[in-house]
Parts: sequence; structure tokens; C-alpha cells
Amino acid sequence: MKTLLIYTHPNHHSLNYSFLKKAIQGLEENPRVEEIQLLDLYAEAFDPLLVFNEHKRRRDMHIDPQLEKYRNQLLWAEKIVFIYPIWWGRPPAMLLGYIDRLFASNFAYRDNGSLFPEGLLKGKSVVCISTMLGPTFYPLLWLNNAHKVLMKKALFNYVGIKKVKFFEFGGMEKANGKQTKKLERIYRYFRSITQ
Amino acid sequence: MKTLLIYTHPNHHSLNYSFLKKAIQGLEENPRVEEIQLLDLYAEAFDPLLVFNEHKRRRDMHIDPQLEKYRNQLLWAEKIVFIYPIWWGRPPAMLLGYIDRLFASNFAYRDNGSLFPEGLLKGKSVVCISTMLGPTFYPLLWLNNAHKVLMKKALFNYVGIKKVKFFEFGGMEKANGKQTKKLERIYRYFRSITQ
Repeated sequence: MKTLLIYTHPNHHSLNYSFLKKAIQGLEENPRVEEIQLLDLYAEAFDPLLVFNEHKRRRDMHIDPQLEKYRNQLLWAEKIVFIYPIWWGRPPAMLLGYIDRLFASNFAYRDNGSLFPEGLLKGKSVVCISTMLGPTFYPLLWLNNAHKVLMKKALFNYVGIKKVKFFEFGGMEKANGKQTKKLERIYRYFRSITQ
Repeated sequence: MKTLLIYTHPNHHSLNYSFLKKAIQGLEENPRVEEIQLLDLYAEAFDPLLVFNEHKRRRDMHIDPQLEKYRNQLLWAEKIVFIYPIWWGRPPAMLLGYIDRLFASNFAYRDNGSLFPEGLLKGKSVVCISTMLGPTFYPLLWLNNAHKVLMKKALFNYVGIKKVKFFEFGGMEKANGKQTKKLERIYRYFRSITQ
């Protein structure tokens, strides 16, 4: 299983980074995982701004030469793991900009004239690990589950990715937030996943 | 009424830009509007990346000198109008990055230890005008209204802004999309708003 980790947090001295390390540790001990790649968007200084205008056509986004290495990484991966904090109920602008630019028409999906296009990233699976300051029940009870709905239905399902698993961890700055237990849970999950 | 327009689209030759022009036209003809400011995030080359680390503390974000002019603009405005396309069910990364950086603790809200903080932008009102390729019913029926929920509940209500009005326009590239009628609706709305 070829696994791509996409990490989006500005600070390596953060609990979010600890989740990344635990995920990598688990994956490295998992005999089914043949190769791991890490894309650390802030460390990479990824440019998150999608631009199209009279000089740069939107229909050519899927062959933008600046993004070729990132497209190849997505095509290579069988499993894609996103690790990010929740800001204002959703992922940071950096990750959403990566999505704006990478998940282009004729790369991630092909318009066939119907409401739902043909997903071109079929067969891959996704895991989203998110951390937030507020309590874990907040997105579900107060925000209609908006974060998960946007990631799963508006994005991954749209491009053909059916298998999407979420870990939403709340209370991240609480002294009694059971952080060690949550980190262990991520380690054990990745050590034993089979597909 | 002091009105700030925040425009987020990379292309001025777009239907989204026509909505901006119609809104400005209506506001200019409205005797209750005393002053208009425009923040065109792409034209301004706004940097949307929130960075905090060992050198730059998150708790100092609200006094970041680079953002002073934008904070003053938000404080000045009585009405804030956001105009943007919907990409992947939500606003572009550029606008969300503006929010990540500007709506800082101790500027937009003050943590008081409870689940809901004290909003510091109380008394202002917001209008969101968004355009999308898909049909208008798609966000409500398929995405649990995620876009509106995130903007209204996770963001504006959180910082104390109670009055939020949405115009979500779908079918933007359709020949029969009634674009002229929608543009007129925006013009008339802004020409006659009283608060």
C-alpha cells in the first residue's frame, strides 16, 4: 500500500505534528505499507492561490507544469492521509488552496454533463485526522457536520473516492484532553490497517 | 452606512465581477450609504497564510503590524459584503485565509472560558454573494447547507455578527441561467437597503 501523508500546520511544535509522527510510526511498522511519502505544505512553501484569467485558462489547470510533481504524487498514492487543525469549522486555507489548485477538471474528475461527474481518482482511500480546540461534539451538534460533509461529499466522493475515514479530535488544549490516548489510537490504527 | 466590499475572484472578466459592479452601482445610488471601500484580495496580492511558530506567537496575531490596515478597515465598516465563487462547496482558499489571519482572538472575539466567546465585532451586518456552476439547490439538498452554516454559525455569529444575508446563485455558466435578472436583483437590493 503506497501511502501519502499531507500535513498542514505551520508549527512543528504542535500536537498536530505529534499526530503526524504517530501516524508515520504506525505506518512504518505495518508490513502492508510498502512506501510512504510526506507532503508538508507549510514546510514546502506551497502556493495555495488558484489563479486563472486572460493569460492562464482554467481549462488548462490540470496540466499546469508547476503542479506536475504534486499530481504525480496523488496518482501514485493508494491511500491519502490528511492531517490538519480545524479553524473556523474547516481546514486551514493552505490545505483548501492545495485542493483548489490540484483537484482540477480533467485530472480529478471529468465533466460528463450530469450533476455528478466521472471521478478520476477512483480506487484510492482517504483518512482525515483533524484537531480542534473546541469539544468533539461541537461540529456535529452545532455545525450540521459541515466539515465532514464538505470533505466527503463535496470533494472526495465527487472525484471518485468512496472510502473516507475521519478522526476528529477536540479539546486539544485541555489538560485532561486524553491526548496520549488519542495519539496511541492513531498509532495503532495505522500499524494495523490492511487497505 | 459605511460599507466594505471584500471581493475574492482571480478574474475581472467573470460573472462574479459583474456582481461586484452591480453591488457598487446600487450602493452609490443609495442615499443612506455614506462611504464605500473595496478590498479586492487577489488584486491586493493578499497573503492568505496564517503562520505561527516559535518566532511568531499565535496570541500576538491580533496586533500583527502587517495586518493593521485590514483590521482598521473591518472596524470602520458597518456593513461587510463578501463576493466570491463557491469552489468545492465553500469559498476560495484566498478568502478563507483572509479569515484565518484577520479574525484573531482578542480582535474578533475574546475567549471567556465558555463554549461561545464574546464577539468583538458586534453591531455589524454581513451580506454574502456567492456564485457557483452547479444548481442552486445543490448545497441545501446535498451538502446540508454546509457553506451557509460555516459562514454564519462557525464564523460571523461567533464574532458577534448576528445579521447575515446570503445570495447563492447557481447555474452560472448556463445560457438560460437568468444572469441578467440576478444581477438586477443585486443592484436593486443594494440601492434600497436601509441598514
